[in-house]
Amino acid sequence: MKILLRLKYLGTAFCGWQYQPGVRTVQKTLTDAAEILFGEKCNITGCSRTDSGVHANDFAATVELSETANKIPRDRIPTAFAPHLPSDLAVTSATPVADDFHPRYDVAYKEYVYKIYASPVADPFLHGRVWHYTGRLSTDALERMNACAAVLVGKQDFASFMAAGSKIEDTVRTVKYCTVEREGTLLTIRIAADGFLYNMVRIIAGTLMSAACGKLDADGMAAIIAAKNRAAAGLTAPPDGLYLNKVVY
Amino acid sequence: MKILLRLKYLGTAFCGWQYQPGVRTVQKTLTDAAEILFGEKCNITGCSRTDSGVHANDFAATVELSETANKIPRDRIPTAFAPHLPSDLAVTSATPVADDFHPRYDVAYKEYVYKIYASPVADPFLHGRVWHYTGRLSTDALERMNACAAVLVGKQDFASFMAAGSKIEDTVRTVKYCTVEREGTLLTIRIAADGFLYNMVRIIAGTLMSAACGKLDADGMAAIIAAKNRAAAGLTAPPDGLYLNKVVY
Repeated sequence: MKILLRLKYLGTAFCGWQYQPGVRTVQKTLTDAAEILFGEKCNITGCSRTDSGVHANDFAATVELSETANKIPRDRIPTAFAPHLPSDLAVTSATPVADDFHPRYDVAYKEYVYKIYASPVADPFLHGRVWHYTGRLSTDALERMNACAAVLVGKQDFASFMAAGSKIEDTVRTVKYCTVEREGTLLTIRIAADGFLYNMVRIIAGTLMSAACGKLDADGMAAIIAAKNRAAAGLTAPPDGLYLNKVVY
Repeated sequence: MKILLRLKYLGTAFCGWQYQPGVRTVQKTLTDAAEILFGEKCNITGCSRTDSGVHANDFAATVELSETANKIPRDRIPTAFAPHLPSDLAVTSATPVADDFHPRYDVAYKEYVYKIYASPVADPFLHGRVWHYTGRLSTDALERMNACAAVLVGKQDFASFMAAGSKIEDTVRTVKYCTVEREGTLLTIRIAADGFLYNMVRIIAGTLMSAACGKLDADGMAAIIAAKNRAAAGLTAPPDGLYLNKVVY
Protein backbone atom coordinates (compact mmCIF):
# COMPACT_ATOMS: atom_id res chain seq x y z
CA MET A 1 0.00 0.00 0.00
CA LYS A 2 1.28 3.43 -0.95
CA ILE A 3 0.32 6.65 0.79
CA LEU A 4 1.01 10.18 -0.46
CA LEU A 5 2.00 12.44 2.40
CA ARG A 6 2.01 16.23 2.21
CA LEU A 7 4.69 17.84 4.37
CA LYS A 8 5.58 21.28 5.63
CA TYR A 9 9.04 22.10 6.92
CA LEU A 10 11.27 24.93 7.98
CA GLY A 11 14.47 24.08 6.13
CA THR A 12 16.89 26.08 8.30
CA ALA A 13 18.08 23.19 10.46
CA PHE A 14 17.84 20.47 7.79
CA CYS A 15 20.59 19.50 5.35
CA GLY A 16 17.93 19.30 2.66
CA TRP A 17 15.52 16.48 1.83
CA GLN A 18 17.73 13.67 0.68
CA TYR A 19 19.22 11.05 3.01
CA GLN A 20 22.96 11.51 3.59
CA PRO A 21 24.81 9.60 6.28
CA GLY A 22 25.56 11.50 9.46
CA VAL A 23 23.48 14.62 8.85
CA ARG A 24 19.95 15.72 9.67
CA THR A 25 17.76 15.49 6.58
CA VAL A 26 13.98 15.62 6.14
CA GLN A 27 13.88 12.18 4.51
CA LYS A 28 15.76 10.55 7.40
CA THR A 29 13.71 12.34 10.06
CA LEU A 30 10.45 11.34 8.36
CA THR A 31 11.62 7.75 7.80
CA ASP A 32 12.49 7.35 11.47
CA ALA A 33 9.09 8.70 12.55
CA ALA A 34 7.28 6.47 10.03
CA GLU A 35 9.07 3.40 11.36
CA ILE A 36 7.79 4.12 14.88
CA LEU A 37 4.30 4.90 13.62
CA PHE A 38 3.78 2.01 11.22
CA GLY A 39 5.88 -0.51 13.14
CA GLU A 40 8.15 -1.36 10.21
CA LYS A 41 10.98 0.05 8.12
CA CYS A 42 9.36 2.18 5.39
CA ASN A 43 10.56 3.20 1.97
CA ILE A 44 9.97 6.95 1.56
CA THR A 45 10.32 8.73 -1.79
CA GLY A 46 10.17 12.53 -2.21
CA CYS A 47 8.90 14.74 -5.03
CA SER A 48 12.22 16.60 -5.28
CA ARG A 49 15.53 17.11 -3.50
CA THR A 50 15.38 20.44 -1.76
CA ASP A 51 18.76 21.85 -0.72
CA SER A 52 20.03 22.63 2.73
CA GLY A 53 18.16 25.61 4.18
CA VAL A 54 15.32 25.50 1.61
CA HIS A 55 11.79 25.41 3.03
CA ALA A 56 8.59 23.67 2.03
CA ASN A 57 5.05 24.87 2.48
CA ASP A 58 3.94 21.80 0.55
CA PHE A 59 6.25 18.89 -0.16
CA ALA A 60 4.96 15.52 -1.40
CA ALA A 61 6.40 12.13 -0.50
CA THR A 62 5.14 8.58 -0.68
CA VAL A 63 5.50 5.96 2.01
CA GLU A 64 5.22 2.27 1.07
CA LEU A 65 3.65 -0.01 3.64
CA SER A 66 3.43 -3.78 3.83
CA GLU A 67 0.30 -5.79 4.63
CA THR A 68 1.42 -6.08 8.22
CA ALA A 69 2.06 -2.37 8.87
CA ASN A 70 0.10 -0.74 11.70
CA LYS A 71 -3.28 0.35 10.35
CA ILE A 72 -4.00 4.03 10.90
CA PRO A 73 -7.05 5.71 9.35
CA ARG A 74 -5.74 8.15 6.72
CA ASP A 75 -7.32 11.22 8.28
CA ARG A 76 -5.56 10.35 11.55
CA ILE A 77 -2.10 10.02 9.99
CA PRO A 78 -1.01 13.69 10.31
CA THR A 79 -2.01 13.78 13.99
CA ALA A 80 -0.41 10.37 14.61
CA PHE A 81 2.87 11.58 13.10
CA ALA A 82 2.91 14.79 15.19
CA PRO A 83 4.38 13.43 18.45
CA HIS A 84 7.15 11.62 16.55
CA LEU A 85 8.30 14.62 14.52
CA PRO A 86 10.46 17.59 15.55
CA SER A 87 8.84 21.03 15.65
CA ASP A 88 10.27 22.04 12.25
CA LEU A 89 8.55 19.24 10.31
CA ALA A 90 4.87 18.34 10.00
CA VAL A 91 2.75 15.94 7.96
CA THR A 92 -0.28 17.90 6.85
CA SER A 93 -2.26 15.27 4.92
CA ALA A 94 -2.23 11.66 3.78
CA THR A 95 -3.96 10.10 0.75
CA PRO A 96 -3.76 6.51 -0.53
CA VAL A 97 -2.40 6.31 -4.11
CA ALA A 98 -1.94 3.57 -6.71
CA ASP A 99 1.11 1.31 -6.35
CA ASP A 100 2.64 2.68 -9.55
CA PHE A 101 2.28 6.32 -8.48
CA HIS A 102 5.64 8.10 -8.36
CA PRO A 103 5.88 11.39 -6.39
CA ARG A 104 8.64 12.75 -8.64
CA TYR A 105 7.85 11.45 -12.12
CA ASP A 106 4.09 11.99 -11.90
CA VAL A 107 4.29 15.70 -11.03
CA ALA A 108 2.24 17.88 -13.41
CA TYR A 109 3.89 21.03 -12.11
CA LYS A 110 5.50 22.48 -9.02
CA GLU A 111 5.30 26.02 -7.75
CA TYR A 112 8.17 27.66 -5.88
CA VAL A 113 8.10 30.95 -4.05
CA TYR A 114 11.24 33.03 -3.49
CA LYS A 115 11.13 35.85 -0.92
CA ILE A 116 13.45 38.83 -0.85
CA TYR A 117 13.44 41.34 1.99
CA ALA A 118 14.92 44.48 0.48
CA SER A 119 15.86 46.85 3.26
CA PRO A 120 19.07 48.07 4.91
CA VAL A 121 17.66 46.94 8.28
CA ALA A 122 16.77 43.24 8.72
CA ASP A 123 13.44 42.02 10.07
CA PRO A 124 14.31 39.78 13.07
CA PHE A 125 11.26 37.62 12.37
CA LEU A 126 12.43 36.81 8.84
CA HIS A 127 16.00 35.65 9.53
CA GLY A 128 16.64 32.45 7.54
CA ARG A 129 13.26 32.85 5.82
CA VAL A 130 14.11 35.47 3.19
CA TRP A 131 17.07 36.74 1.22
CA HIS A 132 17.90 39.89 3.12
CA TYR A 133 19.02 42.25 0.37
CA THR A 134 20.58 45.48 1.60
CA GLY A 135 21.37 47.08 -1.77
CA ARG A 136 19.41 49.81 -3.45
CA LEU A 137 16.57 48.94 -5.86
CA SER A 138 15.72 50.95 -8.95
CA THR A 139 12.48 52.93 -8.76
CA ASP A 140 10.92 50.69 -11.41
CA ALA A 141 12.21 47.48 -9.76
CA LEU A 142 8.88 45.65 -9.76
CA GLU A 143 8.09 46.47 -13.39
CA ARG A 144 11.59 45.47 -14.52
CA MET A 145 11.43 42.22 -12.58
CA ASN A 146 8.04 41.34 -14.04
CA ALA A 147 9.16 42.21 -17.56
CA CYS A 148 12.13 39.86 -17.18
CA ALA A 149 10.05 37.19 -15.43
CA ALA A 150 7.58 37.14 -18.34
CA VAL A 151 10.43 36.22 -20.72
CA LEU A 152 10.95 32.99 -18.77
CA VAL A 153 7.44 31.67 -19.46
CA GLY A 154 7.07 28.86 -21.99
CA LYS A 155 8.91 25.75 -23.15
CA GLN A 156 12.55 26.76 -23.40
CA ASP A 157 16.08 25.59 -22.81
CA PHE A 158 17.02 26.80 -19.34
CA ALA A 159 20.67 25.70 -19.47
CA SER A 160 21.73 29.21 -18.37
CA PHE A 161 19.79 28.68 -15.15
CA MET A 162 21.35 25.40 -14.11
CA ALA A 163 24.18 25.15 -11.58
CA ALA A 164 27.51 24.71 -13.34
CA GLY A 165 28.66 21.11 -13.17
CA SER A 166 25.16 19.55 -13.26
CA LYS A 167 25.05 16.30 -15.23
CA ILE A 168 21.52 16.76 -16.66
CA GLU A 169 21.53 16.77 -20.49
CA ASP A 170 17.94 17.71 -21.29
CA THR A 171 17.68 21.26 -20.01
CA VAL A 172 14.35 22.08 -21.67
CA ARG A 173 11.56 22.84 -19.21
CA THR A 174 8.16 24.50 -19.45
CA VAL A 175 7.60 27.46 -17.15
CA LYS A 176 3.85 27.95 -16.66
CA TYR A 177 4.09 31.33 -14.98
CA CYS A 178 6.61 33.56 -13.28
CA THR A 179 5.49 36.71 -11.50
CA VAL A 180 6.79 39.12 -8.89
CA GLU A 181 4.71 40.83 -6.23
CA ARG A 182 5.77 43.56 -3.88
CA GLU A 183 4.41 44.31 -0.43
CA GLY A 184 6.45 47.14 1.02
CA THR A 185 10.01 45.85 1.39
CA LEU A 186 9.07 42.23 0.64
CA LEU A 187 9.41 40.96 -2.92
CA THR A 188 7.86 37.59 -3.72
CA ILE A 189 8.75 35.68 -6.89
CA ARG A 190 6.27 32.93 -7.79
CA ILE A 191 7.26 30.44 -10.47
CA ALA A 192 5.69 27.20 -11.68
CA ALA A 193 7.13 24.66 -14.11
CA ASP A 194 6.83 21.02 -15.08
CA GLY A 195 10.31 20.55 -13.68
CA PHE A 196 13.27 22.52 -12.40
CA LEU A 197 16.98 22.19 -13.05
CA TYR A 198 19.46 22.19 -10.17
CA ASN A 199 19.43 25.65 -8.51
CA MET A 200 17.14 26.97 -11.26
CA VAL A 201 14.85 29.03 -9.02
CA ARG A 202 17.75 30.44 -7.01
CA ILE A 203 19.59 31.50 -10.19
CA ILE A 204 16.38 33.01 -11.57
CA ALA A 205 15.92 34.90 -8.27
CA GLY A 206 19.50 36.19 -8.45
CA THR A 207 19.02 37.24 -12.05
CA LEU A 208 15.70 38.97 -11.34
CA MET A 209 17.48 40.95 -8.62
CA SER A 210 19.85 42.25 -11.32
CA ALA A 211 16.68 43.54 -12.98
CA ALA A 212 15.51 45.02 -9.65
CA CYS A 213 18.78 46.98 -9.47
CA GLY A 214 18.26 48.34 -12.98
CA LYS A 215 20.99 46.21 -14.52
CA LEU A 216 18.79 43.96 -16.68
CA ASP A 217 15.78 44.35 -18.94
CA ALA A 218 13.60 41.93 -20.94
CA ASP A 219 16.00 41.93 -23.91
CA GLY A 220 18.87 41.11 -21.57
CA MET A 221 16.87 38.25 -20.08
CA ALA A 222 16.16 36.86 -23.57
CA ALA A 223 19.89 37.04 -24.32
CA ILE A 224 20.67 35.13 -21.10
CA ILE A 225 18.27 32.34 -22.12
CA ALA A 226 19.72 32.26 -25.64
CA ALA A 227 23.27 31.97 -24.30
CA LYS A 228 22.57 28.52 -22.79
CA ASN A 229 25.47 29.22 -20.47
CA ARG A 230 25.36 29.51 -16.68
CA ALA A 231 27.88 32.35 -16.77
CA ALA A 232 25.39 34.55 -18.64
CA ALA A 233 22.86 34.57 -15.78
CA GLY A 234 23.01 36.33 -12.40
CA LEU A 235 24.21 35.05 -9.04
CA THR A 236 22.65 32.12 -7.19
CA ALA A 237 20.38 33.57 -4.52
CA PRO A 238 20.77 32.05 -1.02
CA PRO A 239 18.56 29.09 -0.02
CA ASP A 240 16.91 31.02 2.83
CA GLY A 241 14.30 32.70 0.63
CA LEU A 242 13.21 29.57 -1.26
CA TYR A 243 9.99 27.68 -0.57
CA LEU A 244 8.57 24.69 -2.43
CA ASN A 245 5.01 25.99 -2.35
CA LYS A 246 2.77 23.62 -4.28
CA VAL A 247 3.09 20.21 -5.94
CA VAL A 248 0.35 19.37 -8.42
CA TYR A 249 -0.23 15.87 -9.88
CA MET B 1 20.99 64.11 24.51
CA LYS B 2 18.32 61.44 24.68
CA ILE B 3 17.14 59.37 21.72
CA LEU B 4 14.07 57.15 21.64
CA LEU B 5 14.77 53.95 19.74
CA ARG B 6 12.08 51.63 18.42
CA LEU B 7 13.15 47.97 18.38
CA LYS B 8 11.93 44.72 16.93
CA TYR B 9 13.12 41.39 18.25
CA LEU B 10 12.49 37.69 18.10
CA GLY B 11 12.53 36.76 21.77
CA THR B 12 13.29 33.05 21.38
CA ALA B 13 17.03 33.26 22.00
CA PHE B 14 16.95 36.15 24.49
CA CYS B 15 16.55 35.84 28.25
CA GLY B 16 14.16 38.78 28.10
CA TRP B 17 14.89 42.50 27.98
CA GLN B 18 16.52 43.22 31.31
CA TYR B 19 20.26 42.99 31.92
CA GLN B 20 21.28 39.96 33.98
CA PRO B 21 24.88 38.90 34.39
CA GLY B 22 26.01 35.99 32.25
CA VAL B 23 22.97 35.65 29.99
CA ARG B 24 21.97 37.03 26.61
CA THR B 25 19.42 39.82 27.04
CA VAL B 26 18.13 42.45 24.64
CA GLN B 27 19.27 45.31 26.86
CA LYS B 28 22.85 43.99 27.04
CA THR B 29 23.01 43.24 23.29
CA LEU B 30 21.72 46.70 22.44
CA THR B 31 24.01 48.41 24.95
CA ASP B 32 27.07 46.67 23.48
CA ALA B 33 26.08 47.71 19.94
CA ALA B 34 25.40 51.30 21.06
CA GLU B 35 28.83 51.51 22.67
CA ILE B 36 30.50 50.61 19.36
CA LEU B 37 28.25 52.94 17.39
CA PHE B 38 28.40 56.03 19.59
CA GLY B 39 31.91 55.47 20.84
CA GLU B 40 31.00 55.59 24.53
CA LYS B 41 29.26 53.58 27.24
CA CYS B 42 25.54 54.37 26.94
CA ASN B 43 22.77 54.21 29.47
CA ILE B 44 19.79 52.39 27.89
CA THR B 45 16.36 52.30 29.50
CA GLY B 46 13.46 50.15 28.22
CA CYS B 47 9.68 50.65 28.17
CA SER B 48 9.07 47.34 29.94
CA ARG B 49 10.76 44.12 30.97
CA THR B 50 9.68 41.44 28.55
CA ASP B 51 10.28 37.89 29.76
CA SER B 52 12.48 35.24 28.25
CA GLY B 53 11.01 34.06 24.94
CA VAL B 54 8.63 37.01 24.56
CA HIS B 55 8.84 38.90 21.25
CA ALA B 56 8.53 42.55 20.31
CA ASN B 57 7.19 44.01 17.10
CA ASP B 58 7.64 47.42 18.66
CA PHE B 59 9.67 47.98 21.81
CA ALA B 60 10.75 51.45 22.93
CA ALA B 61 14.00 52.30 24.69
CA THR B 62 15.97 55.47 25.27
CA VAL B 63 19.70 55.87 24.89
CA GLU B 64 21.46 58.74 26.65
CA LEU B 65 24.43 60.28 24.88
CA SER B 66 27.04 62.74 26.06
CA GLU B 67 28.20 65.83 24.15
CA THR B 68 31.18 63.88 22.86
CA ALA B 69 29.30 60.86 21.48
CA ASN B 70 29.71 60.07 17.77
CA LYS B 71 27.22 62.17 15.83
CA ILE B 72 24.94 60.11 13.58
CA PRO B 73 22.00 61.69 11.75
CA ARG B 74 18.81 60.28 13.32
CA ASP B 75 17.47 58.78 10.11
CA ARG B 76 20.77 56.90 9.68
CA ILE B 77 20.74 55.38 13.18
CA PRO B 78 18.72 52.18 12.34
CA THR B 79 21.01 51.42 9.39
CA ALA B 80 24.11 52.26 11.41
CA PHE B 81 23.04 49.85 14.17
CA ALA B 82 22.35 47.00 11.71
CA PRO B 83 25.91 45.64 11.26
CA HIS B 84 26.46 45.64 15.03
CA LEU B 85 23.29 43.75 15.96
CA PRO B 86 22.54 40.02 15.71
CA SER B 87 19.88 38.90 13.21
CA ASP B 88 17.18 38.57 15.89
CA LEU B 89 17.28 42.23 16.93
CA ALA B 90 16.79 45.40 14.89
CA VAL B 91 16.49 49.12 15.56
CA THR B 92 13.64 50.36 13.37
CA SER B 93 13.59 54.08 14.15
CA ALA B 94 15.24 56.78 16.24
CA THR B 95 13.77 60.08 17.47
CA PRO B 96 15.33 62.71 19.76
CA VAL B 97 13.29 63.26 22.94
CA ALA B 98 13.43 65.68 25.88
CA ASP B 99 15.92 64.93 28.64
CA ASP B 100 13.14 64.25 31.13
CA PHE B 101 11.35 61.78 28.85
CA HIS B 102 11.05 58.33 30.43
CA PRO B 103 10.26 55.35 28.18
CA ARG B 104 8.42 53.49 30.94
CA TYR B 105 6.70 56.16 33.02
CA ASP B 106 5.58 58.26 30.05
CA VAL B 107 3.74 55.45 28.25
CA ALA B 108 0.13 56.36 27.43
CA TYR B 109 -0.69 52.75 26.61
CA LYS B 110 0.88 49.58 25.29
CA GLU B 111 -0.67 46.97 23.03
CA TYR B 112 0.22 43.32 23.29
CA VAL B 113 -0.74 40.57 20.88
CA TYR B 114 -1.00 36.92 21.94
CA LYS B 115 -1.13 34.24 19.24
CA ILE B 116 -2.52 30.75 19.68
CA TYR B 117 -2.24 28.08 16.99
CA ALA B 118 -5.05 25.67 17.76
CA SER B 119 -4.47 22.47 15.83
CA PRO B 120 -3.38 18.92 16.62
CA VAL B 121 -0.58 19.30 14.02
CA ALA B 122 2.01 22.07 14.55
CA ASP B 123 2.98 24.57 11.86
CA PRO B 124 6.79 24.28 11.50
CA PHE B 125 7.02 27.96 10.61
CA LEU B 126 5.37 29.02 13.87
CA HIS B 127 7.48 27.11 16.37
CA GLY B 128 8.42 29.46 19.25
CA ARG B 129 6.13 32.15 17.79
CA VAL B 130 2.72 30.91 18.96
CA TRP B 131 1.20 28.87 21.75
CA HIS B 132 0.59 25.59 19.98
CA TYR B 133 -2.65 24.38 21.54
CA THR B 134 -3.59 20.81 20.65
CA GLY B 135 -6.82 20.54 22.65
CA ARG B 136 -10.33 20.77 21.27
CA LEU B 137 -12.11 24.14 21.06
CA SER B 138 -15.82 24.61 21.58
CA THR B 139 -17.80 25.47 18.44
CA ASP B 140 -18.50 28.96 19.82
CA ALA B 141 -14.87 29.50 20.93
CA LEU B 142 -14.44 32.90 19.30
CA GLU B 143 -17.73 34.28 20.62
CA ARG B 144 -17.00 33.00 24.13
CA MET B 145 -13.49 34.42 24.09
CA ASN B 146 -14.72 37.82 22.95
CA ALA B 147 -17.51 37.85 25.53
CA CYS B 148 -14.94 37.19 28.26
CA ALA B 149 -12.42 39.62 26.76
CA ALA B 150 -15.02 42.42 26.83
CA VAL B 151 -15.39 41.99 30.60
CA LEU B 152 -11.72 42.94 31.02
CA VAL B 153 -12.17 46.40 29.49
CA GLY B 154 -12.12 49.40 31.82
CA LYS B 155 -10.39 50.56 35.00
CA GLN B 156 -10.36 47.56 37.32
CA ASP B 157 -8.33 45.70 39.88
CA PHE B 158 -6.49 42.98 37.95
CA ALA B 159 -4.96 41.26 41.00
CA SER B 160 -6.31 37.91 39.75
CA PHE B 161 -4.16 38.34 36.62
CA MET B 162 -0.85 38.99 38.35
CA ALA B 163 1.75 36.27 38.89
CA ALA B 164 1.62 34.97 42.46
CA GLY B 165 4.45 36.41 44.52
CA SER B 166 4.58 39.78 42.74
CA LYS B 167 5.33 42.64 45.10
CA ILE B 168 3.22 45.29 43.30
CA GLU B 169 0.56 46.72 45.62
CA ASP B 170 -1.52 48.85 43.26
CA THR B 171 -3.07 46.30 40.94
CA VAL B 172 -5.60 48.64 39.31
CA ARG B 173 -5.04 49.12 35.58
CA THR B 174 -7.15 50.46 32.71
CA VAL B 175 -7.67 48.09 29.79
CA LYS B 176 -8.56 50.13 26.68
CA TYR B 177 -9.59 47.18 24.55
CA CYS B 178 -9.31 43.42 24.43
CA THR B 179 -10.47 41.51 21.37
CA VAL B 180 -9.94 38.11 19.79
CA GLU B 181 -9.74 37.41 16.08
CA ARG B 182 -9.69 34.04 14.35
CA GLU B 183 -8.11 33.19 11.02
CA GLY B 184 -8.51 29.47 10.51
CA THR B 185 -6.51 27.76 13.26
CA LEU B 186 -4.84 30.97 14.42
CA LEU B 187 -6.39 32.90 17.31
CA THR B 188 -5.04 36.40 17.99
CA ILE B 189 -5.74 38.21 21.24
CA ARG B 190 -5.12 41.96 21.12
CA ILE B 191 -5.07 43.91 24.38
CA ALA B 192 -4.12 47.47 25.24
CA ALA B 193 -3.76 49.03 28.68
CA ASP B 194 -2.06 51.90 30.47
CA GLY B 195 0.05 49.32 32.25
CA PHE B 196 0.33 45.59 32.76
CA LEU B 197 1.00 43.53 35.88
CA TYR B 198 3.61 40.79 35.86
CA ASN B 199 2.43 37.98 33.51
CA MET B 200 -0.94 39.73 33.07
CA VAL B 201 -1.30 39.12 29.33
CA ARG B 202 -0.16 35.51 29.61
CA ILE B 203 -2.64 34.81 32.43
CA ILE B 204 -5.40 36.55 30.44
CA ALA B 205 -4.48 34.39 27.40
CA GLY B 206 -4.60 31.22 29.50
CA THR B 207 -7.95 32.26 30.96
CA LEU B 208 -9.41 33.13 27.55
CA MET B 209 -8.41 29.63 26.41
CA SER B 210 -10.61 28.25 29.19
CA ALA B 211 -13.39 30.20 27.49
CA ALA B 212 -12.36 28.79 24.10
CA CYS B 213 -12.76 25.28 25.52
CA GLY B 214 -16.27 26.11 26.76
CA LYS B 215 -15.25 26.19 30.44
CA LEU B 216 -15.76 29.91 31.07
CA ASP B 217 -18.33 32.57 30.18
CA ALA B 218 -18.62 36.31 30.79
CA ASP B 219 -20.11 35.83 34.26
CA GLY B 220 -17.26 33.51 35.13
CA MET B 221 -14.76 36.12 33.95
CA ALA B 222 -16.43 38.79 36.09
CA ALA B 223 -16.18 36.45 39.07
CA ILE B 224 -12.45 35.92 38.41
CA ILE B 225 -11.85 39.67 38.42
CA ALA B 226 -13.94 40.09 41.59
CA ALA B 227 -11.94 37.35 43.36
CA LYS B 228 -8.72 39.45 43.25
CA ASN B 229 -6.88 36.18 43.62
CA ARG B 230 -4.46 34.65 41.13
CA ALA B 231 -5.84 31.18 41.89
CA ALA B 232 -9.22 32.16 40.43
CA ALA B 233 -7.84 32.76 36.91
CA GLY B 234 -6.62 30.28 34.30
CA LEU B 235 -3.14 29.01 33.59
CA THR B 236 -0.23 31.20 32.51
CA ALA B 237 0.12 30.80 28.74
CA PRO B 238 3.68 30.19 27.47
CA PRO B 239 5.84 33.18 26.46
CA ASP B 240 6.13 31.98 22.84
CA GLY B 241 2.83 33.51 21.71
CA LEU B 242 3.36 36.94 23.28
CA TYR B 243 4.36 40.06 21.33
CA LEU B 244 4.72 43.60 22.59
CA ASN B 245 3.05 45.15 19.57
CA LYS B 246 2.76 48.89 20.08
CA VAL B 247 3.96 51.47 22.61
CA VAL B 248 2.15 54.79 22.53
CA TYR B 249 3.37 57.96 24.32
